[in-house]
Amino acid sequence: MTLMADCKAGKIPEIVKLVAESEGVSPEFVRGQVASGRVVIPRNKNRSFDPIGIGQGLSTKVNANLGTSRDKADIEFELAKLKAALEAKTDAVMDLSTGGDLSAIRKVILDACPVPLGTVPIYETAIRMVENQLPMVNMNSESIFSTIEDQARMGVDFITVHCGVTRNLVRMLLEGDRLMEVVSRGGSFLIEWVHYNQAENPLYEHYDRLLELAREYELTLSLGDGLRPGTIIDATDKPQIQELVTLGELVERARKADVQSMVEGPGHIPVNQIETNVRLEKSLCKDAPFYVLGPIVTDIAPGYDHITSAIGGALAGSFGADFLCYVTRAEHLCLPDRESVWEGVMAARIAAHAADLAKGFNKAWEWDRQMSKARKKLDWEKMLSLAIDPELARKTRATIPPEKEEVCTMCGEFCALKKIGEIKA
Amino acid sequence: MTLMADCKAGKIPEIVKLVAESEGVSPEFVRGQVASGRVVIPRNKNRSFDPIGIGQGLSTKVNANLGTSRDKADIEFELAKLKAALEAKTDAVMDLSTGGDLSAIRKVILDACPVPLGTVPIYETAIRMVENQLPMVNMNSESIFSTIEDQARMGVDFITVHCGVTRNLVRMLLEGDRLMEVVSRGGSFLIEWVHYNQAENPLYEHYDRLLELAREYELTLSLGDGLRPGTIIDATDKPQIQELVTLGELVERARKADVQSMVEGPGHIPVNQIETNVRLEKSLCKDAPFYVLGPIVTDIAPGYDHITSAIGGALAGSFGADFLCYVTRAEHLCLPDRESVWEGVMAARIAAHAADLAKGFNKAWEWDRQMSKARKKLDWEKMLSLAIDPELARKTRATIPPEKEEVCTMCGEFCALKKIGEIKA
Repeated sequence: MTLMADCKAGKIPEIVKLVAESEGVSPEFVRGQVASGRVVIPRNKNRSFDPIGIGQGLSTKVNANLGTSRDKADIEFELAKLKAALEAKTDAVMDLSTGGDLSAIRKVILDACPVPLGTVPIYETAIRMVENQLPMVNMNSESIFSTIEDQARMGVDFITVHCGVTRNLVRMLLEGDRLMEVVSRGGSFLIEWVHYNQAENPLYEHYDRLLELAREYELTLSLGDGLRPGTIIDATDKPQIQELVTLGELVERARKADVQSMVEGPGHIPVNQIETNVRLEKSLCKDAPFYVLGPIVTDIAPGYDHITSAIGGALAGSFGADFLCYVTRAEHLCLPDRESVWEGVMAARIAAHAADLAKGFNKAWEWDRQMSKARKKLDWEKMLSLAIDPELARKTRATIPPEKEEVCTMCGEFCALKKIGEIKA
Repeated sequence: MTLMADCKAGKIPEIVKLVAESEGVSPEFVRGQVASGRVVIPRNKNRSFDPIGIGQGLSTKVNANLGTSRDKADIEFELAKLKAALEAKTDAVMDLSTGGDLSAIRKVILDACPVPLGTVPIYETAIRMVENQLPMVNMNSESIFSTIEDQARMGVDFITVHCGVTRNLVRMLLEGDRLMEVVSRGGSFLIEWVHYNQAENPLYEHYDRLLELAREYELTLSLGDGLRPGTIIDATDKPQIQELVTLGELVERARKADVQSMVEGPGHIPVNQIETNVRLEKSLCKDAPFYVLGPIVTDIAPGYDHITSAIGGALAGSFGADFLCYVTRAEHLCLPDRESVWEGVMAARIAAHAADLAKGFNKAWEWDRQMSKARKKLDWEKMLSLAIDPELARKTRATIPPEKEEVCTMCGEFCALKKIGEIKA
């Protein structure tokens, strides 16, 4: 019995109670949401940690992508980033390593990770080919599914699977006029495979096998958008939406098999197309949790993509996106370091919180209310400790300290809040 | 004859042609917008610089607030911030100094400032009282208007005037249940004055005198929102909207007097109330240019308010706000330094650009298109030089440099764009 099967049967497993408690909603509500597929609780049957729920009616969650690359495969460096991401209170982590001993790195990260951990197994499948001096296109169903099972056995909680990159879609893409055909690594591996082998994507053709594995290990499927736009010029175009239609069908098949699934989304979307993208996903994928990668709202700000993605994430979340993948300032430039990871998680958490305010969550509003009350009282200790990043707030205030502790150096004695206190006294 | 009078008379002054050229629109379009009050071109008759237009149909502009405080009154420090703001390409600057020799500071900043410069004259009026050991409430029409004239004579291009803080509004505010009654410094000075003197706000009572001064010096009025919400808890409440109704009336009187005017807006607004705020201003103020202060979308992120305001600014701009006042990471904590100013202008420019994409401006889309073409070609030199902050983009890329120059250390040889190039070759 999977979690979803239990919930469908009306049972309320312990994991559901824990999520309900942390969200301040009833266990019955969470049970219903999991049963219908509107909420996922990613946790491998071999893992144990305080669970989180992702989806409609629950607070917006954030994910931090970590992982080595061929140019920088340093486990200590990745562990430092993991520590930073956790201290900055990320809700989930993905290990996207593509350099070094992938299995060893995953093991180390899993052991140090008390939040849901996701991976993209096709990376490992492809890289094993390269390591064995074989062309990547020699991957086959066996190598793909055995990697997935290896990772599931190790305890991975959710996996990105680009099942929607079908043979038809690849043809449409290669015949089309997209500016940037593909920016998803996993997507590009599968496009190459499909195009070279002139065969159907194994993750689509053998989707039932994937569902079996997911059932066995209580693995949550994150249906990847291999053809997400990689520039706002391509946003909301035919390949993107065609893939989304397929992902909607795969969500329904997962639900029938009692497997938890969510749907990944862009990517690069201009501000005025974000609402459409969220509503489309919710409609085509029957309210499956929507996991957006940013989105960033312009392409011209490399070095500031924690900001371009905070804009897009806040907006997407406010329209119903459930899970925001952070984007760091290193995006489009290099692998992120510890500082970029910290700041990236903070920016994504700000976006998620802004979305939660728009979604009307009491807990979110209460935080702002407490902060505003402290401001009104000029209670600096309270303000600083309520800040999303108390250490940064303290450090910033200390750069130009005030003569009188009750105010700040922006307005000093001309503080409007101080004045109104005197007027009303 | 003021600029607006000329435009109403069907003339196309040189300044209108310059704005039209820089925006890539017809001079006749700009003339019509200025005549109707939908666009302002702030430039004092005693000043000379390349003008900018602010308002409907033109690209979204950004402003950087500078200025000393009593705790930190250092001209060199302010000049360094001005230089940073200009290098970061701010469209306008406000000198909000409240410490040191206000007149001398303004002179130095005006001389070094080739973009529109705004001030809040009530600061100087109030501070002169304090300097003369007089209570602030001893200000009167004479001292208020003589300060405005002094500043206009010096060359200030636009001034924030809190004309909407009427006696009725102050009564409503003090009898009401706002969490944070006032966070506007100028607003708080006038509230205190009105409350103590039990008299009408001179800027409202003698608004015609203000219009005369504005006509004489070609001064653009920025109708301040003294009662803007200072916490999202108070957003879109009665005092805020009551003031906006008054500002709408004052816009109409300014237009009749051939005086350019814009309207200032919040402040603190949750994501889901931003559209309402912009549409309300455009409706009540007959499409007057909307100059928003941020807005920041949550109160809990001091130290990151360049991000919370970029979210709000992008969204406000996408719905029609015309002019975004930056907010730096120092906001709510201290006076900003050079680095905060630079980053604040960049964050506001990103928001303005995201808004311009949403507004459908070709020039904005072309920038993203060029960047995306460079990315597709893996043309790093082009990508880095097209970045909004080339120096930061270069520095960031150099933190973890790639072995092969054609890619970056995020994906390395597994670059999706590299792969699709090979597939299509």
